Amino acid sequence: MFVYEREVRFHEVDGAGLVFFPRFFTYAHEAMEGLFAPVRGGYAGLIMQRRVGLPAVKVQSEFHAPLRYGDRVRVETRVARLGSRSLELAYRFVRASDGVAAAEMRHTVVCTDLVAMKSTEMPDDVRDVASAHLQAD
Amino acid sequence: MFVYEREVRFHEVDGAGLVFFPRFFTYAHEAMEGLFAPVRGGYAGLIMQRRVGLPAVKVQSEFHAPLRYGDRVRVETRVARLGSRSLELAYRFVRASDGVAAAEMRHTVVCTDLVAMKSTEMPDDVRDVASAHLQAD
Amino acid sequence: MFVYEREVRFHEVDGAGLVFFPRFFTYAHEAMEGLFAPVRGGYAGLIMQRRVGLPAVKVQSEFHAPLRYGDRVRVETRVARLGSRSLELAYRFVRASDGVAAAEMRHTVVCTDLVAMKSTEMPDDVRDVASAHLQAD
Amino acid sequence: MFVYEREVRFHEVDGAGLVFFPRFFTYAHEAMEGLFAPVRGGYAGLIMQRRVGLPAVKVQSEFHAPLRYGDRVRVETRVARLGSRSLELAYRFVRASDGVAAAEMRHTVVCTDLVAMKSTEMPDDVRDVASAHLQAD
Repeated sequence: MFVYEREVRFHEVDGAGLVFFPRFFTYAHEAMEGLFAPVRGGYAGLIMQRRVGLPAVKVQSEFHAPLRYGDRVRVETRVARLGSRSLELAYRFVRASDGVAAAEMRHTVVCTDLVAMKSTEMPDDVRDVASAHLQAD
Repeated sequence: MFVYEREVRFHEVDGAGLVFFPRFFTYAHEAMEGLFAPVRGGYAGLIMQRRVGLPAVKVQSEFHAPLRYGDRVRVETRVARLGSRSLELAYRFVRASDGVAAAEMRHTVVCTDLVAMKSTEMPDDVRDVASAHLQAD
Repeated sequence: MFVYEREVRFHEVDGAGLVFFPRFFTYAHEAMEGLFAPVRGGYAGLIMQRRVGLPAVKVQSEFHAPLRYGDRVRVETRVARLGSRSLELAYRFVRASDGVAAAEMRHTVVCTDLVAMKSTEMPDDVRDVASAHLQAD
Repeated sequence: MFVYEREVRFHEVDGAGLVFFPRFFTYAHEAMEGLFAPVRGGYAGLIMQRRVGLPAVKVQSEFHAPLRYGDRVRVETRVARLGSRSLELAYRFVRASDGVAAAEMRHTVVCTDLVAMKSTEMPDDVRDVASAHLQAD
């Protein structure tokens, strides 16, 4: 499991004063970037130099409790399924102040050649990092 | 069905040059705001004056084709299920230039008293607007 | 003068319930994109196909009155100075409901070859559009 | 001087592949939140519990070099002027990889009672934190 923790930012709330729900997906993406930071060149290098990315093909999420400005969120991430060209990430969002589960998410990504915009075999180092966090359902 | 169309904005893409997938949820929320614009005081009035909101409790999405800066997206929205305190919206995202289906989404929201932060009966005018777009599966 | 009007969006406010001030620059950029929409291929085509852009080199802004969710903002834009490789835009942000001036902005951009990442002569069609909105101080 | 460093995020670039210039103001705000973190309840507590904020009234910025996804940015912040109800922050944005100055910014904020939406005397703890970083021009 990979743990990523960060503050809710001043500009991440909405007109109702709650974290705007699409932000949870941004937090998830940040957690994924952190999980894959050990790949050659980092996750940004994977995208920018190696031109391989992990676009989302499927996302499912349930929201249990709101986050507000001033909260901290802890994102617990594991790889729930690992295929040859795709993988599924499972996230649990915890409000750090009181340990309340704020949300859960499933996020399936496909390893993609960003030049050809076609799916491609997962590079070995990407697979290795994913394997290290594999914790099937 | 409620149709909302808008351009992909310059700042809505990511490091891979594609619309960052959480933006689709923002587009969905904009479409929902448009669908509910006919309620008393508009959707913003519902939130800001009447202090009633529609926070997401469940979201599911599949992504089929990317959007890029310069594309237009057409969001076709219908109410797929209408309960007394909750409703489910179904969205279809179409790339306007070529009619390609970019994504599909399901979005369940619960009518919420934003002061008490508790679910509440849907106000009549909100239900009426939702009913007008009800198209069950 | 080019006039661009749009709603304040649900996710554009901050923890204080006011439009987060960097959003004004996003609104300005949207107005600039609208002003330059008549160029060959549109502003997005300028960036994506012709690989010419107008990055900011200088920005100055004064904020007079807040905007909130539910407000509409009218952005009045003119070209205040037009050089061979740069131009200065002047924006006035008006809260549409009551006509209050919310902000003023100056925005100097340099015509840039996005491949070489060097300044370049402004293409004729870009200059023509800018000239049409030139209204020097 | 207060130093805040962070990565450029995947979703913070624009259609030209560069950090969208309004993001620099978001980075500045994050640096300001960090600088004021030592106040009673933190900066979020100042806003959310004490209902006092520091909205921008004036911003000036020059942009010298772009940032891209994968870059780190170091934001060096000082208080350049400290009044009874307002203060001016000066920021220097440095690309951490090569030490290049990416941007400079001036940001004047007014201490504001967020309930009355009127300027107010700066609370003592806010003034104390600002004084600790005061480094006049």
